[in-house]
Amino acid sequence: MAKTNAGRFFEDYAVGRRIDHAVPRSVSGGERALYHALYPARHAVYSSDQFAQSCGLAASPIDDLAAFHVVFGKTVPDVSLNAVANLGYAEGRWLRPVWPGDTLRASSEVIGVKQNSNGKTGVVWVRTRGMNQRDETVLEYVRWVMVRKGDIAAPAPATVVPELRPVVAPQDLVIPEGLDFTGYDFSLAGEPHRWGDYEVGETIDHVDGVTIEEAEHMMATRLWQNTAKVHFDATFRPDGQRLIYGGHVISMARALSFNGLANAQMIVGLNAGAHANPCFAGDTIRAWSEVVDKAELAAPGVGALRLRLVATRGGAPFALRAADGAYLPEVLLDLDYWVLCPL
Amino acid sequence: MAKTNAGRFFEDYAVGRRIDHAVPRSVSGGERALYHALYPARHAVYSSDQFAQSCGLAASPIDDLAAFHVVFGKTVPDVSLNAVANLGYAEGRWLRPVWPGDTLRASSEVIGVKQNSNGKTGVVWVRTRGMNQRDETVLEYVRWVMVRKGDIAAPAPATVVPELRPVVAPQDLVIPEGLDFTGYDFSLAGEPHRWGDYEVGETIDHVDGVTIEEAEHMMATRLWQNTAKVHFDATFRPDGQRLIYGGHVISMARALSFNGLANAQMIVGLNAGAHANPCFAGDTIRAWSEVVDKAELAAPGVGALRLRLVATRGGAPFALRAADGAYLPEVLLDLDYWVLCPL
Amino acid sequence: MAKTNAGRFFEDYAVGRRIDHAVPRSVSGGERALYHALYPARHAVYSSDQFAQSCGLAASPIDDLAAFHVVFGKTVPDVSLNAVANLGYAEGRWLRPVWPGDTLRASSEVIGVKQNSNGKTGVVWVRTRGMNQRDETVLEYVRWVMVRKGDIAAPAPATVVPELRPVVAPQDLVIPEGLDFTGYDFSLAGEPHRWGDYEVGETIDHVDGVTIEEAEHMMATRLWQNTAKVHFDATFRPDGQRLIYGGHVISMARALSFNGLANAQMIVGLNAGAHANPCFAGDTIRAWSEVVDKAELAAPGVGALRLRLVATRGGAPFALRAADGAYLPEVLLDLDYWVLCPL
Repeated sequence: MAKTNAGRFFEDYAVGRRIDHAVPRSVSGGERALYHALYPARHAVYSSDQFAQSCGLAASPIDDLAAFHVVFGKTVPDVSLNAVANLGYAEGRWLRPVWPGDTLRASSEVIGVKQNSNGKTGVVWVRTRGMNQRDETVLEYVRWVMVRKGDIAAPAPATVVPELRPVVAPQDLVIPEGLDFTGYDFSLAGEPHRWGDYEVGETIDHVDGVTIEEAEHMMATRLWQNTAKVHFDATFRPDGQRLIYGGHVISMARALSFNGLANAQMIVGLNAGAHANPCFAGDTIRAWSEVVDKAELAAPGVGALRLRLVATRGGAPFALRAADGAYLPEVLLDLDYWVLCPL
Repeated sequence: MAKTNAGRFFEDYAVGRRIDHAVPRSVSGGERALYHALYPARHAVYSSDQFAQSCGLAASPIDDLAAFHVVFGKTVPDVSLNAVANLGYAEGRWLRPVWPGDTLRASSEVIGVKQNSNGKTGVVWVRTRGMNQRDETVLEYVRWVMVRKGDIAAPAPATVVPELRPVVAPQDLVIPEGLDFTGYDFSLAGEPHRWGDYEVGETIDHVDGVTIEEAEHMMATRLWQNTAKVHFDATFRPDGQRLIYGGHVISMARALSFNGLANAQMIVGLNAGAHANPCFAGDTIRAWSEVVDKAELAAPGVGALRLRLVATRGGAPFALRAADGAYLPEVLLDLDYWVLCPL
Repeated sequence: MAKTNAGRFFEDYAVGRRIDHAVPRSVSGGERALYHALYPARHAVYSSDQFAQSCGLAASPIDDLAAFHVVFGKTVPDVSLNAVANLGYAEGRWLRPVWPGDTLRASSEVIGVKQNSNGKTGVVWVRTRGMNQRDETVLEYVRWVMVRKGDIAAPAPATVVPELRPVVAPQDLVIPEGLDFTGYDFSLAGEPHRWGDYEVGETIDHVDGVTIEEAEHMMATRLWQNTAKVHFDATFRPDGQRLIYGGHVISMARALSFNGLANAQMIVGLNAGAHANPCFAGDTIRAWSEVVDKAELAAPGVGALRLRLVATRGGAPFALRAADGAYLPEVLLDLDYWVLCPL
């Protein structure tokens, strides 16, 4: 029997099964420094212990997307090693900050399966939870992927398609304990725009661009212990290109969005997300945002913005779909998330 | 009104105005590790806690140039986003070591403005201070940049050109509290040469070369949260090249100077500096130094060397200027600084 | 006299001489994060403090190969600056874990010299020890290198060829204090295979591949303060290629070997090693292993596996040598080491 991990195939997933993912990971100031070296991240809560403390937190947490990537990376050997496509995200919530010194592990439950009509692939839905060393859940999300069948002759399972909410309701967002934006220093944070300054429907071109290098996306992806071959092995695809981890594009776009959304400090909800087109080294990533919704919250001085974040490799800002409804070829990412912002 | 930062234009600077720069930054062992991964840095005080303690310090500080880059990076969105050229440095002093766990922020005062005769640009002088979380100034320097006018029709301001000292006087250099080189271990530090072994006028070819990669200079520049587009976006310049942050060349040359100046441990003064020519990925950086001056200091076992550090991308060592006085095309950097060295 | 280090030449080594290598180095969570960004390292003891604690350790140590690289890097300016080739390793033992916060230094003793018949080069054997800040030896190994003579006319020294054991005996392996694998969590570690599941003679194709980038191998090599010109300066070799530090290949292959050897947790012995062919950026590194021997040990739940680890840049797995006994051109590394594995 081969000792290497061949990954799971579509027929290996059964609704209700729990998968405890391997290799817990401790994080430190090293991960934080690398995050800042890999992305132009500048949100002040994640940059300065003192700024975070002025907002009621114990210290500056690990970037919320870094925490997401660590958890996501754990799931790859069990969920997406044989995935054909990463189809979507839903019901994502950040429940607790992750601090330097914490150790993260992850567990997923299969919540849906649906064989495709071609009989060769199927869609698998999993709900993933990331836990810290105190067994507290730090984040959770649903994602669904298209996975190859290992044995074409395996019978199709009963179709179960989970009912997923199209958006996390504001009252379900979890605000980090102690968070208080009433003494928020807009000058130190980098921009004067408050929650009240953003209007539903408003769009923001984040202006800056970053040209992507192979060494950078591979270092980022490895840092999260994501081992999908397609990101690292130039001989894996017929075209000799390494596909860039979709999370690298998410982090790059989010960091670029500082320019115009410097006070959109903490991500607390992930409503939906599509990796619209593949990204390769040499692409220059740009980003624009749209304010989709706003919500008042119970924490002092804290409001929520629901944002669409779109990453592109060129093209005009705010262009998203062609006449036929398909994403434009230059659109890389279409992400729908909730973020906490000072009132 | 656009929410993104368009940067300041020449007419936006008024002498006497103070700019508090955004996004304070906490540093840790992560930044130190990355500094050593990005530059061949080997000065023992910045490499070993025990070595630093044997020199009277509490621990190994963050590299003095890393501290400089963090402070410099903070100023970019306010000072050089619309800069045409970084013209010079003066009156730079390192006042206190920066330790892992410290948080740095920066503030600048406009001390001079002079519109150019073309009416399209002007020179702005700022004095920048970097502060830690205890509001102690850790370093200060003057730099001047050429900045575009946003509105060509804006009236020229009254010209104010600050009087800057051509060199920081030895008695104005600040020695880190407790520094004592009387028990200095030359063997552990890597070279036997003491302060007394260096003669004014002596030149040293540092021999080694490093070929620069895009991924490295971008990671370095992002680590300092320097967001100038020209370093990251290959579509920004007509030639498709990303201009390398001048500070990357400074750190590379300083690290290369270990070979011959291993005991030139701590930078305490920046007298002048010119980025003579642009640097691009693919260039192989080399360095040479000239001992410009020497000074005795009050701290036990500690002397100061004033050094010229020249970075090149080839050419003969010690060649600096053409017959007409212009820097040779292969010269990248001409830096004049004070460093502490064991007697 | 030139102040730069010209390195030692063959005639500068005398049997019995001790060389204390320069520039001690403190390590932190930063080095650990970078190790995980540079290599697809996933062995759980080095990834999670809690997992390491469940195995009886105080915390997650710095990767054993990272400790090796730091010590090795210290020796380069004294041992291999003028080396023509790195010929072999023997009698390597890891004696104590290295923890974040430790400071490493290194010392070598010359234990053999043999001038080559061409009169231009010779072989030098050194036994190197790495020590922490408590003067405890953390690892030791013998390596031998071919070094140029500086003065061809220098007389040949008396030949001394040290007797080296072809393999570290199991009873000489040092098990980290407190190590106990009786409560080992195979699920968290990533694979179910125990010591008893591996058979002598068994071979494992680790399947995954990583294409190497210049920026990555240079960052890795600099992180260990290894300054050999040939790794960094594209103008150094006539072909314009930068030779990749052999240790980069070792770490890459070891990390790839997780897939099939996830429970081969801690390296404790280095029996032999050959860098069979040079590696350059663009190569895609793959790895395979052979179980060479097994040994029972005194610590609870702990066994030892002796493994051959072969790194290639293509070719068929398990192919090693041509008919004439020479390494195949695609073989990069042939390493023979002992590793601790749960029973």
